Amino acid sequence: MNSRAIVKPKRTVRVELADRSYDILIGPGLIASAANEIASRLKGRRMAVITDENVGARYLAPLMDSLAASGIDAVSLVLPAGEKTKSFEHLIPVCETILGARIERNDAVIALGGGVIGDLTGFAAGIARRGSRFIQIPTSLLAQVDSSVGGKTGINSPHGKNLIGVFHQPDLVLADTDVLDTLSPREFRAGYAEVAKYGLIDKPDFFDWLEANWRAVFAGGDARIEAIATSCQAKADVVAADERENGRRALLNLGHTFGHALEAATQYDGSRLVHGEGVAIGMVLAHRFSARMNLASPDDAARVEAHLKDVGLPTRMGDIPGALPPVGTLMDAIAQDKKVKGGQLTFILTRGIGRSFVADDVPASEVIRFLEEMHPR
Amino acid sequence: MNSRAIVKPKRTVRVELADRSYDILIGPGLIASAANEIASRLKGRRMAVITDENVGARYLAPLMDSLAASGIDAVSLVLPAGEKTKSFEHLIPVCETILGARIERNDAVIALGGGVIGDLTGFAAGIARRGSRFIQIPTSLLAQVDSSVGGKTGINSPHGKNLIGVFHQPDLVLADTDVLDTLSPREFRAGYAEVAKYGLIDKPDFFDWLEANWRAVFAGGDARIEAIATSCQAKADVVAADERENGRRALLNLGHTFGHALEAATQYDGSRLVHGEGVAIGMVLAHRFSARMNLASPDDAARVEAHLKDVGLPTRMGDIPGALPPVGTLMDAIAQDKKVKGGQLTFILTRGIGRSFVADDVPASEVIRFLEEMHPR
Repeated sequence: MNSRAIVKPKRTVRVELADRSYDILIGPGLIASAANEIASRLKGRRMAVITDENVGARYLAPLMDSLAASGIDAVSLVLPAGEKTKSFEHLIPVCETILGARIERNDAVIALGGGVIGDLTGFAAGIARRGSRFIQIPTSLLAQVDSSVGGKTGINSPHGKNLIGVFHQPDLVLADTDVLDTLSPREFRAGYAEVAKYGLIDKPDFFDWLEANWRAVFAGGDARIEAIATSCQAKADVVAADERENGRRALLNLGHTFGHALEAATQYDGSRLVHGEGVAIGMVLAHRFSARMNLASPDDAARVEAHLKDVGLPTRMGDIPGALPPVGTLMDAIAQDKKVKGGQLTFILTRGIGRSFVADDVPASEVIRFLEEMHPR
Repeated sequence: MNSRAIVKPKRTVRVELADRSYDILIGPGLIASAANEIASRLKGRRMAVITDENVGARYLAPLMDSLAASGIDAVSLVLPAGEKTKSFEHLIPVCETILGARIERNDAVIALGGGVIGDLTGFAAGIARRGSRFIQIPTSLLAQVDSSVGGKTGINSPHGKNLIGVFHQPDLVLADTDVLDTLSPREFRAGYAEVAKYGLIDKPDFFDWLEANWRAVFAGGDARIEAIATSCQAKADVVAADERENGRRALLNLGHTFGHALEAATQYDGSRLVHGEGVAIGMVLAHRFSARMNLASPDDAARVEAHLKDVGLPTRMGDIPGALPPVGTLMDAIAQDKKVKGGQLTFILTRGIGRSFVADDVPASEVIRFLEEMHPR
């Protein structure tokens, strides 16, 4: 991929889902020109914009201005930032805002924010009038390359993360790459874990390219746009092949079963661990566990760990600040994870870099022994 | 239809929806034999049963006994009876009960109750783990012939009825006709309004048959089972043709736009008006309005009113006890109803008995003038 020609500043990735197909637009300046892109695709003239305090402070005014200038009558709701917002408590006012705005069939709900706002707003759009049109304007790298694409929406439950939600595809995704310049390095790195994931799932060339070019991706410009577009295309391909996660889509959970358990173990406290960091540690664990099960070479696990460490991501449970609960508690979280079938544990394992697969018969005893070894205590 | 042979005591209606097709079983004794029917269709051995205080007092124990005897591990949740239970307040504990029971992909959530329990539980099943298997055991006539079939689920909002929900088809519907013997006459009549609706939509022969046989339907036995099976088949046909209500399914809303507005106008106070009664008045209004628009003969409206009055249903706004709000308030409720597109009012109108159609360009001014005339003041 090193020889690929310089990309144009703006890229479009199409998610092919028959009559629910949609475009992901990637490039600078898309928030300011959002209304043009929306108005050229939707006939409706009413919108409800949902955002959080942090993102809203920077980008809500320009977006509302853009909508008003195009004759779109928009209302907005600003929610607290953070994972705790993915709850029934905040879902209710989002639904009432949408219904109060009398969003009709050609109007739309707009999520302006990161994964939390996108998941929450998408869920509300999916259930308001049994499904309203929905536009994602993701403002974190993680949301741009992962959560804004593919239609998984939802909130958290006391029983676990993302356990309540619907599949509801957006009608349009606007990934404004300018906003990434304002992310903290930690937040950018966390999103990068999901970028690397696409290489590890089934694109070894992309992982090679990332190893060689990650500094350029972090610096911004064309390499970053290229990495985002490649990631979105990878996700779009998987979603088009298996929208409802009956098979191949489960590969996108590489690193996520361990990662979700670690997020639960740290009470979703973002000061200790954010989602992408959990995924980074989870991907290393998945590669190590695969090596331990004699499925892959330990060298691949070492290579994955070295790259994620290079970019500054945590790669071991011991990298998480503070004490972790015992292995039994982690196993409970793993068993409550969505990817359970008839009591058997389902994991995404790998035969090497870019050779991941769904294993739905992983013995719990092996996972427990492995976690006992990895646990920092 | 008068010449139809005596029906067998148990009938099966199939809802054809490709890989989501399912059976509606109709007949006596189905609650006591529920576990057999479930176990022969689903591999899972964990169930969560949701019911209300009234239905639960009679039927929860026999159902739980039946499940336990078949080796099914079931938990139950009993909610307050009444329309107010269709709210976020009660949705949350239903979701948590389902998640706490660790319902997996082959297990199921069971709704044991009328339309309120079915709509609420179906919604929770539709969003728990982004979709869990779901069994309807409808215990009212209305639920057996209408709400338990077709996958519309949801709760009410302060903005209107059923405005928040999902399409989520059941895996099985068990309509135990024994339970109908314990309904109050008023509740049975309310369900009967939906039975008559199928005749009025597109089955004039069925409406003729009901005019001749309604006393036998009310008395129970084969005529009642025949009426339920014909109604379920009518609904199944419409749902199979248009699951997501992009077209023909809207016909099922005959009488519902006016009916919902009247329910809202009476604050969903079941002592004044229950859903089926609102539909009865709404169907008469739809036929009268169609006559007023010179679409149908006033004789048809008179015939519909005469039949519904014969069975003891209210047919005019003035039949509702207590004062109604002014026409402006009713119009607001109509405009907030789901069947709105680009500000135009959508109504189900008719060219005569069994000749209903979707009119999506009804001028609000005509509806206001009509309501002014009909309003009892």
